[in-house]
Amino acid sequence: MWIQKEIQLKARTRGFYLVTEEVLKQLPEIADLSIGMMNILIKHTSASLTINENADPSVRDDFEAVFNKLVPENQSYYTHTYEGSDDLPAHIKSSLLGSSINIPITQGALNLGIWQGIYLCEHRNHGTSRELVVTINGEKILMNDGVSS
Amino acid sequence: MWIQKEIQLKARTRGFYLVTEEVLKQLPEIADLSIGMMNILIKHTSASLTINENADPSVRDDFEAVFNKLVPENQSYYTHTYEGSDDLPAHIKSSLLGSSINIPITQGALNLGIWQGIYLCEHRNHGTSRELVVTINGEKILMNDGVSS
Amino acid sequence: MWIQKEIQLKARTRGFYLVTEEVLKQLPEIADLSIGMMNILIKHTSASLTINENADPSVRDDFEAVFNKLVPENQSYYTHTYEGSDDLPAHIKSSLLGSSINIPITQGALNLGIWQGIYLCEHRNHGTSRELVVTINGEKILMNDGVSS
Repeated sequence: MWIQKEIQLKARTRGFYLVTEEVLKQLPEIADLSIGMMNILIKHTSASLTINENADPSVRDDFEAVFNKLVPENQSYYTHTYEGSDDLPAHIKSSLLGSSINIPITQGALNLGIWQGIYLCEHRNHGTSRELVVTINGEKILMNDGVSS
Repeated sequence: MWIQKEIQLKARTRGFYLVTEEVLKQLPEIADLSIGMMNILIKHTSASLTINENADPSVRDDFEAVFNKLVPENQSYYTHTYEGSDDLPAHIKSSLLGSSINIPITQGALNLGIWQGIYLCEHRNHGTSRELVVTINGEKILMNDGVSS
Repeated sequence: MWIQKEIQLKARTRGFYLVTEEVLKQLPEIADLSIGMMNILIKHTSASLTINENADPSVRDDFEAVFNKLVPENQSYYTHTYEGSDDLPAHIKSSLLGSSINIPITQGALNLGIWQGIYLCEHRNHGTSRELVVTINGEKILMNDGVSS
């Protein structure tokens, strides 16, 4: 079976955010699948998605600092500058991190490692609400009577 | 239903290229799907695929400049040097950006954000024609009479 | 049909490793599929997976050197430092390279380019055994009598 829906993440300022719960509370359908695959695409080119540590917030703080060093603002050789000093670095960071993630589904839940969570990587100083396309494909859990739930 | 085919992108010199139309004109089958997922794998280790801004070409120019700064040629510590000074950086860039992309399909079209397009990232000075494997899985659009198109 | 299983990669010290054979010998089911898609997720945030050159080991050596330059240890601005100097860089490298890969299946085998292989990117100095979730979806090869194998 296929499930596809568009969901929103609330607007945030620049930084890395753990959004696993904000995503999952919009996807109760996952509980019905015994096995499957979920893809989430962020429909923007100045924010991205990645999977990383879900525990200590200092990791997300350091992500923001490291990516700002890797792709600094205001370099003299940048030509795409008219949308703000954060814009071109946002595009580069978006492709370094990626626009979509794939997560397996097992017995009605995401099958992530115990320390893994979903990060929204907001690369604009003042991001807007971000739109995601969630596409899930999988098999329904069979009930005890052999009928799909 | 599954669709899988190998398509080619024409040879290009080093740089980042918007290839959404060159890809889509080879994939008329997408129009038949109501919901699904498309994966494109580039079968090379010195070129890559990413999703980014489809509007101003200056973004692609800046991508080329930024990735050359991130992964410069001719570093003294490189050991894999016999295939040319662009070769080892090409491999690194390929893994930073990724060998494949996933894009959802909705009502017969790719479901990308309005500013998103597909980039071919050619990391060799003189790339050859690049071979892609396109794998699509999804549900056919039903016609008004309830029969699959 | 869907196939999902968890497999292990043996423990390794920090570096980039070609693991195509170690993965494939645990996945004989691929031979039964005519067309499909395989996703492999690594259930850790300090190791990653990528696709790159399967030939000269010097490429993997240079990957280790380049990623150590891109994300150096012991930077004064790091705050997530209590798990060892290799830990925060490991998280960053993991997101730069990615936690999962997708590879198409064609006629019973992975459809990779001739020079492509699967890399385990071990970012900790002394990594443990790494757990992967492999999720495969595809169509079974039909036998000559028209029955699925």
